[in-house]
Amino acid sequence: MRPGVILMAISTTIMSLSAAEANTASNPPMVRIAEIEVDPAQLDAYKTLLAEEQEASVRLEPGVLMLHSVAIVGQPSQIRLLEVYSDRTAYETHIRSPHFVKYKSATERMVKSLRLIDTAPILLCAKAQGGEANPSFACR
Amino acid sequence: MRPGVILMAISTTIMSLSAAEANTASNPPMVRIAEIEVDPAQLDAYKTLLAEEQEASVRLEPGVLMLHSVAIVGQPSQIRLLEVYSDRTAYETHIRSPHFVKYKSATERMVKSLRLIDTAPILLCAKAQGGEANPSFACR
Repeated sequence: MRPGVILMAISTTIMSLSAAEANTASNPPMVRIAEIEVDPAQLDAYKTLLAEEQEASVRLEPGVLMLHSVAIVGQPSQIRLLEVYSDRTAYETHIRSPHFVKYKSATERMVKSLRLIDTAPILLCAKAQGGEANPSFACR
Repeated sequence: MRPGVILMAISTTIMSLSAAEANTASNPPMVRIAEIEVDPAQLDAYKTLLAEEQEASVRLEPGVLMLHSVAIVGQPSQIRLLEVYSDRTAYETHIRSPHFVKYKSATERMVKSLRLIDTAPILLCAKAQGGEANPSFACR
């Protein structure tokens, strides 16, 4: 890659970061917890469909900022999600997306209960990609 | 900044990402949910101390990958945290850090109950810093 191209890319990123930060300051993201109980017999299939949906959503949708899923140790059918959207419009776009509609339909008979908990973010802090090896981080 | 410096920085990042990804594949991160009930009269002070502790931890500790805190809408004294450490050693280092010890001591009389829930990550996906304006993302 030519240095000129790199400089232009870095410059664009800096401008974009500023715009995003300004937006975050005035409009906090929409953050939700989902508590999901899954049929134990279908747990592996469910987790595969969930992971596919998470990856597609964060990759394809500009307003899906984070989707983190975990299973409770000792209660593996109890799934918890932390969902972060840039705003309510981004969430409404998300639930109409082909990948979400596919997930919702394919897992309908796997999910025994679903509780959606609206939350107000206090602070969301994460290391940049690369984890330990990358010292940069962001809090919003 | 000279183009040579930028090239070197980018090259280092690419190498570091590969090392981190290799590490993640063999050692899944330690992920936990904390359910915290705070004395309503001390809620603002608590949230300030919590946010300070989160920011310092993710900024200063290589193994603290994410600390996300939220309050439940309609039950603002009910705080939930998603905590992601690179491994158990990183967590043990974290709870001995000056900023965590300060937080723990300062909030001792603010916290009415604390429930720590060990979890197994399914998939953790997030956009890179910059949110909507930055199209890169990572799942681990």
